[in-house]
Amino acid sequence: MTDAATNMRLKLPIICFILQIILIILFGVLVEYDHDTDAKKWHNESHSENDNEFYYRYPSFQDVHVMIFIGFGFLMTFLQRYGFSSVGFNFLIAAFSLQWATLMQGFFHGMHGGKIHIGVESMINADFCTGAVLISFGAVLGKTSPVQLLVMAIFEVTLFAVNEFVLLTALGAKDAGGSMTIHTFGAYFGLMVTRVLYRPNLNKSQHRNSSVYHSDLFAMIGTIYLWMFWPSFNSAITAHGDDQHRTAMNTYYSLAACTLATYGMSAVTAHDGKLDMVHIQNAALAGGVAAGTAGEMMLTPYGSMIVGVLAGIISVLGYKYLSPILEDKLKIQDTCGIHNLHGMPGVLGAIVGAVTAAVASTDVYGKGMADVFPDVANGDIEASYQGVRQAISLAVTLGMALGGGLVVGFILKLPVFGAPPDTICFEDSIYWEVPGEEEDHGEQLTAVHAAEAEKLNN
Amino acid sequence: MTDAATNMRLKLPIICFILQIILIILFGVLVEYDHDTDAKKWHNESHSENDNEFYYRYPSFQDVHVMIFIGFGFLMTFLQRYGFSSVGFNFLIAAFSLQWATLMQGFFHGMHGGKIHIGVESMINADFCTGAVLISFGAVLGKTSPVQLLVMAIFEVTLFAVNEFVLLTALGAKDAGGSMTIHTFGAYFGLMVTRVLYRPNLNKSQHRNSSVYHSDLFAMIGTIYLWMFWPSFNSAITAHGDDQHRTAMNTYYSLAACTLATYGMSAVTAHDGKLDMVHIQNAALAGGVAAGTAGEMMLTPYGSMIVGVLAGIISVLGYKYLSPILEDKLKIQDTCGIHNLHGMPGVLGAIVGAVTAAVASTDVYGKGMADVFPDVANGDIEASYQGVRQAISLAVTLGMALGGGLVVGFILKLPVFGAPPDTICFEDSIYWEVPGEEEDHGEQLTAVHAAEAEKLNN
Amino acid sequence: MTDAATNMRLKLPIICFILQIILIILFGVLVEYDHDTDAKKWHNESHSENDNEFYYRYPSFQDVHVMIFIGFGFLMTFLQRYGFSSVGFNFLIAAFSLQWATLMQGFFHGMHGGKIHIGVESMINADFCTGAVLISFGAVLGKTSPVQLLVMAIFEVTLFAVNEFVLLTALGAKDAGGSMTIHTFGAYFGLMVTRVLYRPNLNKSQHRNSSVYHSDLFAMIGTIYLWMFWPSFNSAITAHGDDQHRTAMNTYYSLAACTLATYGMSAVTAHDGKLDMVHIQNAALAGGVAAGTAGEMMLTPYGSMIVGVLAGIISVLGYKYLSPILEDKLKIQDTCGIHNLHGMPGVLGAIVGAVTAAVASTDVYGKGMADVFPDVANGDIEASYQGVRQAISLAVTLGMALGGGLVVGFILKLPVFGAPPDTICFEDSIYWEVPGEEEDHGEQLTAVHAAEAEKLNN
Repeated sequence: MTDAATNMRLKLPIICFILQIILIILFGVLVEYDHDTDAKKWHNESHSENDNEFYYRYPSFQDVHVMIFIGFGFLMTFLQRYGFSSVGFNFLIAAFSLQWATLMQGFFHGMHGGKIHIGVESMINADFCTGAVLISFGAVLGKTSPVQLLVMAIFEVTLFAVNEFVLLTALGAKDAGGSMTIHTFGAYFGLMVTRVLYRPNLNKSQHRNSSVYHSDLFAMIGTIYLWMFWPSFNSAITAHGDDQHRTAMNTYYSLAACTLATYGMSAVTAHDGKLDMVHIQNAALAGGVAAGTAGEMMLTPYGSMIVGVLAGIISVLGYKYLSPILEDKLKIQDTCGIHNLHGMPGVLGAIVGAVTAAVASTDVYGKGMADVFPDVANGDIEASYQGVRQAISLAVTLGMALGGGLVVGFILKLPVFGAPPDTICFEDSIYWEVPGEEEDHGEQLTAVHAAEAEKLNN
Repeated sequence: MTDAATNMRLKLPIICFILQIILIILFGVLVEYDHDTDAKKWHNESHSENDNEFYYRYPSFQDVHVMIFIGFGFLMTFLQRYGFSSVGFNFLIAAFSLQWATLMQGFFHGMHGGKIHIGVESMINADFCTGAVLISFGAVLGKTSPVQLLVMAIFEVTLFAVNEFVLLTALGAKDAGGSMTIHTFGAYFGLMVTRVLYRPNLNKSQHRNSSVYHSDLFAMIGTIYLWMFWPSFNSAITAHGDDQHRTAMNTYYSLAACTLATYGMSAVTAHDGKLDMVHIQNAALAGGVAAGTAGEMMLTPYGSMIVGVLAGIISVLGYKYLSPILEDKLKIQDTCGIHNLHGMPGVLGAIVGAVTAAVASTDVYGKGMADVFPDVANGDIEASYQGVRQAISLAVTLGMALGGGLVVGFILKLPVFGAPPDTICFEDSIYWEVPGEEEDHGEQLTAVHAAEAEKLNN
Repeated sequence: MTDAATNMRLKLPIICFILQIILIILFGVLVEYDHDTDAKKWHNESHSENDNEFYYRYPSFQDVHVMIFIGFGFLMTFLQRYGFSSVGFNFLIAAFSLQWATLMQGFFHGMHGGKIHIGVESMINADFCTGAVLISFGAVLGKTSPVQLLVMAIFEVTLFAVNEFVLLTALGAKDAGGSMTIHTFGAYFGLMVTRVLYRPNLNKSQHRNSSVYHSDLFAMIGTIYLWMFWPSFNSAITAHGDDQHRTAMNTYYSLAACTLATYGMSAVTAHDGKLDMVHIQNAALAGGVAAGTAGEMMLTPYGSMIVGVLAGIISVLGYKYLSPILEDKLKIQDTCGIHNLHGMPGVLGAIVGAVTAAVASTDVYGKGMADVFPDVANGDIEASYQGVRQAISLAVTLGMALGGGLVVGFILKLPVFGAPPDTICFEDSIYWEVPGEEEDHGEQLTAVHAAEAEKLNN
């Protein structure tokens, strides 16, 4: 089933080892332990051990880590013959991206005497950046080789860091949970890549582009983990104290409300009043995406719930009505429907963030304003201008993502990366040694066959 | 396979959206951030950031959250054709219940100037209340529509909050891990509901009321997560410091001892000396249930182990001998055997709690008495009277659960909620769009078929 | 399928209950709450609640717990017909081992007035010791009865505690993540046991000693959880502050680098340039094993990455080339390839630890030296001598493991423990009641059969 072009015997080892060697050299030259991870620096001053950043953020980091590796990985196992690749390529590109992101984000977030300082916060940020790459992976799932995915990751991580720098540092926007930097960026980047990689004859693999009973259950493992730990995701790098606490809670209510809206919308739109697993697996998560920017703000619990309901509604409607149009009219083949889970809810989250920022007041935030909107707190700008910053950030993100995706799409089209042919998409066996089905089935079939043959011979 | 009565196209969206809109309105009117989540209130005073309740309880909250959504959800996937509904309806009713519980518990736990204050502790409590609903779900699994389940949740959450208020506030009982409030209540409520919903012709669906190889493995995901995180569950809302620490450890030893007892009892009672997955999946958890009340007390490690062993023994015996009797004689069709996992071990836990409380002394607790039994510590009552309180609380819980289950059972019998017919219970396809099995099987079968047909034609 | 010898009706209950009763008695006599879990002791002094060890270590403990029960349990479900036993026996022997380890480690770690004091740190240590037993389980997977496994655990836990005492206390070695105490010990112990239990006719069960599509996906759940939480494993009992923080980060980078190396090596060595699930499931974890000793030291991020790359390379090469040789020449039937995942990477980790310790200097560690190498910090020894200690510790561990495995292997050969016959290895149904496959398959087969029969009759 493999021809020379898709054979990975040389291509994959070469790119893996070259990338890893480059990473090791750059880490050797550029990267140092930060104040909280370095034995000497930490012990140079006296402080309480529980002031180490580790205790504020490591549990959240591990929740984010689960979302990246189990959440994204298993969410994509819904395809009947692509479970190894979904979990396995997710694992590979995440393991690369988090190393590369440490360098790129470290470079843009500010060097310390020519060195990048790392600790738990940089680990979380690297996982976040990886999340954007995995979102884009969802659009091209089943249609790309692991080499293509690594090449995509190299460029996407780099551009992510640039965009993040522009938004958070240059423009002074707030986006703790990444409605813009992660979801909007990852989604529109991936959509543009898959547009450029358009396959007119993908219908030849269409029979494999669907789920089976057990693959849908594996995918639910991914869904539920993403859903449960999204409060940790959005709050992982917000300020200590009330900020982390509030962000987690806002996200929790947004997701709960989104789930009810998703079930309602799925039943009303789906065939024969039955629930559609695609909606449950994906749209129920849109509430987390949409609370990514405003989650740390004083969004209020009921505000969070309204955001969640809106996100669930537009996400289900997107799966039902918009995705077929995007594929037919705009030639965007979006395997996982990332436009519905990350794209539109990400834009919604950005807008909600802009509005919530614009109406911020000291009456509501008190001295806590300094954590959430420091420029407003110290009088540099009005809250309404913070809203403008947020809106500009959305526009910048959309432009960066679409432009970057366009260029990277064409790079991935180069016929040297071992992309699968149209007839063997959504199929593990092109890149993996795949075992047979359970012997029992085979035995039973053989038994049936033998019994019939015997009868025929008589 | 769906007839008009079970069609969810209108019923499910209507109840989902009405409930969610009511929730949003009530949250808008009644709910506020508490001191630790509100930007203004938190920053009004000076304190160390790591005194925020978030850092004491959020990791435990996430463990509890995993138990509710992965633990309960996957534990119920053991049925061969009910995996979508097990995980999916668990997801739906939990997402609703946690919102509704925030309001009901907030109302009874004490309003602040007409407002309900929320933070991580209320999130944990809401998840706890949700747990009781999911226990009841286990009794009616496979025999109820999602609309019935939501209606059940509305009433059960409300009554849970009343019962919890009576026990913890009015009676002054202690029940940190909810042997009474969660397990006993959820179990007997659910058992009474399933009694009222008795289906004399359920045997028509009996061939689907069993597991297959892979469905049992999915269920083990649920089992293991519940088992691992039960120490977090029981300790999630106990007092800071030694109390959380001790409760987690007591539960850990109770569960470990329960597991050995379960394996021993399973082999001795099961057919041909072989282990029964039903026992392993369920009875091994009974040690967590039974340590729910006394876990925070000075139960001692070996005391915890004795409790765990007893819980494992009665749970396996219940599955083996009592469940068939309950079904045949009392017409209680208990799909998951919640009486064995939550009912009897919950009652055991309540009794252990009453005895442990009655023998509490300052010799053992020192100044720590104030955390565990404040009324004993400040001299209002004797320890023995605390034991009486605990025993009364068990009786109250049983009465509330059975009475409430009776009423709610009759409400759920109303023929408007789309319950499945007797012939299509334990079957996903009545409420879900279900994909086929793997194409390979089909292909193989088709190939066999074609080969035989060819031979026949010759 | 069961004959009298493998029947567990009496053997398993007897050993389970005898062991549990002994445990309860010994716990009753010997075990007490420690300072941080005892109500009286904790409240005897004034301190901040968040100084309780619980808040420093409980989140890490839960991550370790997930690795032990989900990670090891599901990693071993890759076999097509051994999922119940993989998860289920893992569960049983872990539940026993953690109790027994509490006693054995407590005895060697220092009694307090004749009592063993327990808290979250002893819980972590007990889980660690359990990990070693589960590693050995991997070597004999599919070829042992649950009674044999419990007997093995009794002896292995005991010897583990002796070896750990010799290394950490008598020799003063450092091994926070257990490259030596856990991985090297568990691996070589298990390899020697499986050598003694050599089955010349195991090929009679060879058709079941392989994976199927879904079993490989279940195994990936185990792999990913082990991979994600390994940073918590290695850092769980290091000193507070920078030490826990640094250890987690070093492990994170070692694993990420190891993953790229594993994918590269798998493609270059495997058949036809395709990736091999065995490599991905196992070798990608070797980076965590190899960072077990040096992870807490100032290994530097790029040093960690080099260690990870080396571990991944030797692990894949081991699976590809060394395992067949071990089986053919040395008669070591290593079901899970623990020599490749734990054995060689464990030795590598020990060597890396010795070298890193030998070059430690106050220039690099500052006052933090006291946390990592207390004897070097207070001037008792030179850093180079610490390196020697580490090297001696490796030799001691190898000797203890091989000697202990030899003895225990012969004990397990006693024909009273119900070991499976050569023809029924790697098969759940010998110890478990196993349900059939999905009825639909049966129905389809029956339908095919019926259709053909009808035609034949015409």
